[in-house]
Amino acid sequence: MEFTAKQISSLINGEIEGDPVVTVSSFGKLEGAEPGQLAFLANPKYEEFLYSTKASIIIINNTQQVEKKVNATLIRVPDAYSAFAIILSAYEQMAKANLTGIQQPVYISDTASLGENIFIGAFTYIGNNVRIGNNVKLFPQVYIGDNVTIDDDSILFPGVKIQHDCVIGKNVTIHAGSVIGGDGFGFAPQQDGSFKKVPQIGNVIVEDNVEIGANATIDRATIGSTLIKSGAKLDNLIQIAHNVEVGNNTVIAAQSGISGSTKIGNNVMIGGQAGIVGHLQIADGSKINAQSGVSKSIKTPNTAVTGSPAFDYSHALRSQILNRNLPELEKRIKELEQIVERLSNEKVTE
Amino acid sequence: MEFTAKQISSLINGEIEGDPVVTVSSFGKLEGAEPGQLAFLANPKYEEFLYSTKASIIIINNTQQVEKKVNATLIRVPDAYSAFAIILSAYEQMAKANLTGIQQPVYISDTASLGENIFIGAFTYIGNNVRIGNNVKLFPQVYIGDNVTIDDDSILFPGVKIQHDCVIGKNVTIHAGSVIGGDGFGFAPQQDGSFKKVPQIGNVIVEDNVEIGANATIDRATIGSTLIKSGAKLDNLIQIAHNVEVGNNTVIAAQSGISGSTKIGNNVMIGGQAGIVGHLQIADGSKINAQSGVSKSIKTPNTAVTGSPAFDYSHALRSQILNRNLPELEKRIKELEQIVERLSNEKVTE
Amino acid sequence: MEFTAKQISSLINGEIEGDPVVTVSSFGKLEGAEPGQLAFLANPKYEEFLYSTKASIIIINNTQQVEKKVNATLIRVPDAYSAFAIILSAYEQMAKANLTGIQQPVYISDTASLGENIFIGAFTYIGNNVRIGNNVKLFPQVYIGDNVTIDDDSILFPGVKIQHDCVIGKNVTIHAGSVIGGDGFGFAPQQDGSFKKVPQIGNVIVEDNVEIGANATIDRATIGSTLIKSGAKLDNLIQIAHNVEVGNNTVIAAQSGISGSTKIGNNVMIGGQAGIVGHLQIADGSKINAQSGVSKSIKTPNTAVTGSPAFDYSHALRSQILNRNLPELEKRIKELEQIVERLSNEKVTE
Repeated sequence: MEFTAKQISSLINGEIEGDPVVTVSSFGKLEGAEPGQLAFLANPKYEEFLYSTKASIIIINNTQQVEKKVNATLIRVPDAYSAFAIILSAYEQMAKANLTGIQQPVYISDTASLGENIFIGAFTYIGNNVRIGNNVKLFPQVYIGDNVTIDDDSILFPGVKIQHDCVIGKNVTIHAGSVIGGDGFGFAPQQDGSFKKVPQIGNVIVEDNVEIGANATIDRATIGSTLIKSGAKLDNLIQIAHNVEVGNNTVIAAQSGISGSTKIGNNVMIGGQAGIVGHLQIADGSKINAQSGVSKSIKTPNTAVTGSPAFDYSHALRSQILNRNLPELEKRIKELEQIVERLSNEKVTE
Repeated sequence: MEFTAKQISSLINGEIEGDPVVTVSSFGKLEGAEPGQLAFLANPKYEEFLYSTKASIIIINNTQQVEKKVNATLIRVPDAYSAFAIILSAYEQMAKANLTGIQQPVYISDTASLGENIFIGAFTYIGNNVRIGNNVKLFPQVYIGDNVTIDDDSILFPGVKIQHDCVIGKNVTIHAGSVIGGDGFGFAPQQDGSFKKVPQIGNVIVEDNVEIGANATIDRATIGSTLIKSGAKLDNLIQIAHNVEVGNNTVIAAQSGISGSTKIGNNVMIGGQAGIVGHLQIADGSKINAQSGVSKSIKTPNTAVTGSPAFDYSHALRSQILNRNLPELEKRIKELEQIVERLSNEKVTE
Repeated sequence: MEFTAKQISSLINGEIEGDPVVTVSSFGKLEGAEPGQLAFLANPKYEEFLYSTKASIIIINNTQQVEKKVNATLIRVPDAYSAFAIILSAYEQMAKANLTGIQQPVYISDTASLGENIFIGAFTYIGNNVRIGNNVKLFPQVYIGDNVTIDDDSILFPGVKIQHDCVIGKNVTIHAGSVIGGDGFGFAPQQDGSFKKVPQIGNVIVEDNVEIGANATIDRATIGSTLIKSGAKLDNLIQIAHNVEVGNNTVIAAQSGISGSTKIGNNVMIGGQAGIVGHLQIADGSKINAQSGVSKSIKTPNTAVTGSPAFDYSHALRSQILNRNLPELEKRIKELEQIVERLSNEKVTE
């Protein structure tokens, strides 16, 4: 897709300086852009790149001074960064809308129902009684098990697997390779030391506007539903165990894991590689630092914790500094011991 | 599949109260169940749901008192929870047995041998000289490399990849997206700072009754076999490096990683996100806490460890508490220093 | 493929003792080898296996004494281990070269360009304007998005996904299930507590001679490129966030994660399950211990760090030992307190 400076400018109510019919077809960083690319300059600190870039069109702030010759066409706006983001979003919407049709071969059960304006990539599998909403995009090699619902405007990238009976809401994005609805990890110990599987017959419900990263795993509930609530954002390689609930607009960074039946509140922020043990309650607005190991419920909203085991953030920071200085602390104890011994001896010999 | 109260009752030797021909086709939690669902009440604490539930059939304890009107058909048994579990297992067995046939398209080498009563989903790939046992279920998009054996009654979920020469035992379950038999991570450093790959020509052997979670990775041995012994249970996103051995009935929770050539004994329990360095021995019955980093062999059976680096569990807990209280400890040292200084001064001035 | 002792010997300039026409078709460990297998003995400690093995051919050191009857044909060389490695590499090269042709069904866009001597496995997807170099091997169920380049001699194992616009260099190996080019994790917080996705329109560039493990995830840049430089080796289940750079010949062990925009230098070694926060600089030759959490840039080359948060390795080890002995340290403080109290009291009562 090609766009002229004039088309772009009209989208963001900008003011053109230079050739209005020059075209771009992709995006670049100002310092590395090539001819035919659109770039932006938001921070005056990088003004020098304005004069050396090969970008064809550059969005800049109204307040940006231009002191040397610029080869590109400039588009001036009040806030260059926001204007650039608007164009990116518009571009992505257009690219997504263009993605339609059913490639071959695919496997689609006769009992599946398909919405309008959908895309189904090659080698995608759609099981019995599946319901696919309008504008849904299923990339190649996706697996949709029996009785699954994928609601309107959702997009599943290559190799995503949604197992039987799970429910995916509207405008959900799931990245490549993620597995939704594998069995929860439940085994009953037997007398002989072996384990007997506890059947996992619940499902996973992913509500509207959720985004899930690549190669993540979200297990089905033993009974009932594992629940990812509206607006939650989960990064790559995350593990969500059976019967977990993740609250609205909660954000979880990569490689974190939540153990079974834990309920995470709304607007919680969880850093990368953090772990939370099972059957806990995490209050709304909690902040859990990267690599933390949370072993107790967090009852007070907006609490920040860190460490493994995790405790109060500012308290933990003080302990971490002292922990780092333990050799110094031990030296102080040793000195005290020597002085005290001397004092005691003097006492004795007085 | 639909079942009457009478059919269910006869499976668990129950006693029916109510309509014996009412049917159910799925399972629910008592409090959230819908018409057509089977639920259970094991804990008298939740008796209230008995009167509000929409479940069609409810399994309850013989001892359960019923004080108000119940719309559902009741089935009384000595232990409602166990009876419910029996029905779940029977249901899963039936569902699995019903899964047969070969969907199209698939890729099956002419030199592969296939057992009886198997299921092969669409887009599944079966390489040369593969041997598939009886009652094996391969979901769609599975990859089976050359010379692999999958023994009787095993089930591989969508997108599982078993690479060449690996051996999967009887009644093994592998969840979606897991990779068995990728190359071990072995590189020899060269004079110029680069690395030369050490060929990884061993395989992976997964013994009987093993279960492996979703998106896990188990690498092939450099030479010989990486070995997952009978009855071991591995959760999602686990990493098992080359030449590792995991003992019988050992349980490993999600996101844990075992480095190369480490031998883990039988009946070991490993929590989530734990790591074990290479070339160690972990004694039978060891308990390794979540997020532990085990850097030394564990020689005494049934030892519990925690922390990173990990050491004895009860000792570590005491250290963790003191670590948390380091600011308090430092305050005590500061007070001692002040008193001792005063005492010394008095000494001098006497 | 079958090889005679004579063929093998000529490849490694060895000297044959025994039958020169005996053949082998696979490799084994000396102690577990079977007839028809090639094994080696490098460490004289294991001499006993020379007499009990069933291997058909054994490579041994020139200096190895043989004191009993050996059934196998022996091939003597100056260094048995290196000679064995040469044969393994030659075998792997041959196996790879034999892998050619296009299996059916596949999906290949009309606008894709394919090199010579390539292999494309069944159910593999190749999008628009893709360029596949010579000798490239794409295993079954691989996904190659639009505008991707895969350069000569690269090999992608089953289920690898390369998303649109990414660039894969020469002689790159990517193991099964890895996802290259998923969206970076970028969301702008909104006034109402929800998050708005920041479009991720950059790509991933993987340079020559890189190896990437199974089920790893490498996200595309927001703008510009996430960059994995020449010779880097990444293990299984690794997370590389948007706009990260990984330097030449840097090695990262399994389950580690690098947050957004961090630049890792050349020849860095990163242990398993380590994490590095975003926007840092890690100097060339740094060594980051397993499970470390790096929260500050490492500015001095060849620095070793450990711990979470990570600091200087040898300092950290001393702190770790004291941390483990905190109960002992507290006991010393308590004793001091008692003595000092006694001294103070005596003072008062004098």
